[in-house]
Amino acid sequence: MAKTVEKYKVFDLELSGTSQGNPFQDVQLTADFSNGIQKLTVKGFYKDQGKYGIRFMPQAEGNWTYETHSSDPQLDGQTGEFLCTPAAAGNHGRVCLKKDVLPKKEVNFYVTEDEFHFAYEDGTRFQPFGTTCYAWVNQSEQVQEQTLETLKNAPFNKIRMCIFPKFYTYNTTDPERYAFQGNAKDGFDFSRFDNVFFENLEKRIQQLDELGIEADIILLHPYDRWGFSKMTKEQDIFYLSYAARRLSHFKNIWWSMANEYDLMPQKTVEDWDTYARVVMENDPYGHLRSIHNCVPLFDHNRSWITHVSVQRVDVYKTAEMVTDWRNQYRKPVIVDEVGYEGNIDFGWGCLTAQELTRRFWEGCMRGGYLSHGETYVDQGDQIWWAHGGTLHGESTARIAFLKEQMAQLPDDIQPLTLTPENHEENWDSVCLHDGESYFLYYYGFFRPLYRNYTLPAGKKYKIELIDTWNMTTEELPEVYEGKIRIKMGARQYMAVRMKEVK
Amino acid sequence: MAKTVEKYKVFDLELSGTSQGNPFQDVQLTADFSNGIQKLTVKGFYKDQGKYGIRFMPQAEGNWTYETHSSDPQLDGQTGEFLCTPAAAGNHGRVCLKKDVLPKKEVNFYVTEDEFHFAYEDGTRFQPFGTTCYAWVNQSEQVQEQTLETLKNAPFNKIRMCIFPKFYTYNTTDPERYAFQGNAKDGFDFSRFDNVFFENLEKRIQQLDELGIEADIILLHPYDRWGFSKMTKEQDIFYLSYAARRLSHFKNIWWSMANEYDLMPQKTVEDWDTYARVVMENDPYGHLRSIHNCVPLFDHNRSWITHVSVQRVDVYKTAEMVTDWRNQYRKPVIVDEVGYEGNIDFGWGCLTAQELTRRFWEGCMRGGYLSHGETYVDQGDQIWWAHGGTLHGESTARIAFLKEQMAQLPDDIQPLTLTPENHEENWDSVCLHDGESYFLYYYGFFRPLYRNYTLPAGKKYKIELIDTWNMTTEELPEVYEGKIRIKMGARQYMAVRMKEVK
Repeated sequence: MAKTVEKYKVFDLELSGTSQGNPFQDVQLTADFSNGIQKLTVKGFYKDQGKYGIRFMPQAEGNWTYETHSSDPQLDGQTGEFLCTPAAAGNHGRVCLKKDVLPKKEVNFYVTEDEFHFAYEDGTRFQPFGTTCYAWVNQSEQVQEQTLETLKNAPFNKIRMCIFPKFYTYNTTDPERYAFQGNAKDGFDFSRFDNVFFENLEKRIQQLDELGIEADIILLHPYDRWGFSKMTKEQDIFYLSYAARRLSHFKNIWWSMANEYDLMPQKTVEDWDTYARVVMENDPYGHLRSIHNCVPLFDHNRSWITHVSVQRVDVYKTAEMVTDWRNQYRKPVIVDEVGYEGNIDFGWGCLTAQELTRRFWEGCMRGGYLSHGETYVDQGDQIWWAHGGTLHGESTARIAFLKEQMAQLPDDIQPLTLTPENHEENWDSVCLHDGESYFLYYYGFFRPLYRNYTLPAGKKYKIELIDTWNMTTEELPEVYEGKIRIKMGARQYMAVRMKEVK
Repeated sequence: MAKTVEKYKVFDLELSGTSQGNPFQDVQLTADFSNGIQKLTVKGFYKDQGKYGIRFMPQAEGNWTYETHSSDPQLDGQTGEFLCTPAAAGNHGRVCLKKDVLPKKEVNFYVTEDEFHFAYEDGTRFQPFGTTCYAWVNQSEQVQEQTLETLKNAPFNKIRMCIFPKFYTYNTTDPERYAFQGNAKDGFDFSRFDNVFFENLEKRIQQLDELGIEADIILLHPYDRWGFSKMTKEQDIFYLSYAARRLSHFKNIWWSMANEYDLMPQKTVEDWDTYARVVMENDPYGHLRSIHNCVPLFDHNRSWITHVSVQRVDVYKTAEMVTDWRNQYRKPVIVDEVGYEGNIDFGWGCLTAQELTRRFWEGCMRGGYLSHGETYVDQGDQIWWAHGGTLHGESTARIAFLKEQMAQLPDDIQPLTLTPENHEENWDSVCLHDGESYFLYYYGFFRPLYRNYTLPAGKKYKIELIDTWNMTTEELPEVYEGKIRIKMGARQYMAVRMKEVK
């Protein structure tokens, strides 16, 4: 009986070959996988002690065969087969751009809206609600386990995380292991990877997948004292090729080319284009790709960028920029740094939970997505944003509540565009709607005693008041039509949901 | 013994002439005032029942003589004299542009900063902290008195107020009297003014002056059902000329050509230029002049505009725009509508006291000024922003506290400009400073546990923590120098003041 592999999971082949010289550099290894219809070439990678890996994520059920090709005769010409079985419940494959997954709709109001959203490759909606633990895989075993335990009980379904450790305020200790062989004292061999580090990284990505969390892997970043941010272009390419070959079989991988690319001025825009191509050449599945700014935004119009992963630039106007960024790039927008809840001394990390929650609502109501982070510096040694560990804030529960509300959105919905006709009722609010049967309004820091609405003629609606901070929804007893006034109680952070009664 | 008039107060001449025809239109009346050095021609105005007025504000001590000229023989050729005595304590004359009043300094760091500020004509600093009661003089006698009583105990030293009544939500009743003769039912005679209305208006402006409050008179505005916003150009000019002739002797008058000029599309930009010239021709003292927007800003570079009276345009980024507006227009910036504390259903008027207070601090720290307003719709019939009456909010006390802090600023101070060198410590805060001996930082909605500072080398400082919401100042016991860390207690709305110890 043939080996079986669940769709979107991994066929993991380990082969033995030479350990002479530097197999990371010297040995070429690929395998052609075919199911008779589709053929993919997957690149292998060296692990350690003569062991090589080839890992394949099948995206179609049925029988698959493979044959290896290698410069090492020991690894060459190996063949085999396996049966790909249906995806189990909850296994939806990779996250993709919605427009690439769902059948094209007729040209109407909503076609362009699909450009701004994600879906799993089986068509299931995916709305990212991310968090940030840059260096969690570089912490102690105990802290890593604690992070996973925290994530298990949190609403987040994406995590921004680095491969390289982080050197920065509150991040000054050396990790136990690095992606490269070597150490901080004696230096690193940028031509040899540390198999133990990668095995742990793989274990963590796998555990994230089991929690339904996408691993938004940051490949390069500037917060460094070990030299990983200042490798040569050749070394960067060598590393990026290896990381993509070794990790791309995970269905829950996203590639973030860099955190704060602009703080690595030694790399040019053309370098980033080259690096993205290297990742794409070594990732046969086409995982999502982005690049993240500190201040100036990268040109997100570039074709290799699947979605906008942006850090807010203005100190005051943050998630409100989602509308502009959508219009500018016509791609999904994730405000991956919109500021963090906490009390660190930097303005990016001393927001109240109310303000971070408000930014989340504001961004989602504009058809964007956001990532959370926490930077309490007086709650023990671990600070979530960098180390993981435990969460202390009040925004996490509100983000869970928001996620529930967003999950209820009908599919054909989009942010209200202001027009001269609707301006008077809508200039000071944000609204998601389908034009007739569903309206969700949000009022942010405003606290009106009531609001007036002109409902679409000839239709009746049920209305719910949503207190986004206190996490309550209250369905009003009446059925509404025409021009109405809804009492909102002079509370901040309110939303109003209207659904047509047919 | 000659009649005496205190400097900057009024020499009020009433003359009797014809009451035939329409004296408002038919009779020309001027008086030349001279003290032997200076000669001013002051235009008169018709009151009622054959009574005419000429009012003159002397700006120099000593003997003044006058002679009238008129098309009416009864009014022509009258002469007289009076003695102008020194200004009493607290009487500083008109508010002017600081650069027009104070001797020019040497060209240095601070010369341009003077462009952005005000001073009384005797050189005394004037920092406007305004409020808004658009139609308070159109309310009942009792409410007008209540408004004055409220103002007596409030920190405001400028008030935005209209001559014409206001028609708008919560503003639907007819006033007892109007600037013009007539009534809402039978219509108005736009060629005849109501003397009783103007006498009350004058009494109120005088009472404001006694409270040290500048009357920022809004001459035209769009919130109208009586026709005052849709008069012909000739009628507008006739009205503006009369208002300027009748009111410009008040030292505490400012002219706001319009509230929300852009909501009166029947008037062109050239009309406003003409209207401003009409006011200037009938105001021999050159009171401050502005024009206020709803959405698009007027071109505040125009030479007749003394200062920028702006309504915030963006819903989210409000007082933060002061920096840009200063740079754009090189004139004092008053955010005369930055949003109001209250709970009305419109986003411009349902801010928390915390948010309005934050906007005040933010704007002042950027070298601008702001006006307050209150729009609680569940606190009785009067809403402060339109009717006056009483105040209910929590921002007024905080604005008083802010005003006290701003009054303590040394004269040679300006907002910190971000440079590559100071960016890291200052990108997320605003700071007023003199470069060496005085620094005032403000952190708005951020709540850092502490902040780090690099103090100027070789100097020592005392430091105060200012809680702008709780209105406390706490002087820290130490004397600081070099690189320091100040604990701020993870509170929002904090400021830090540093003064050099010599």
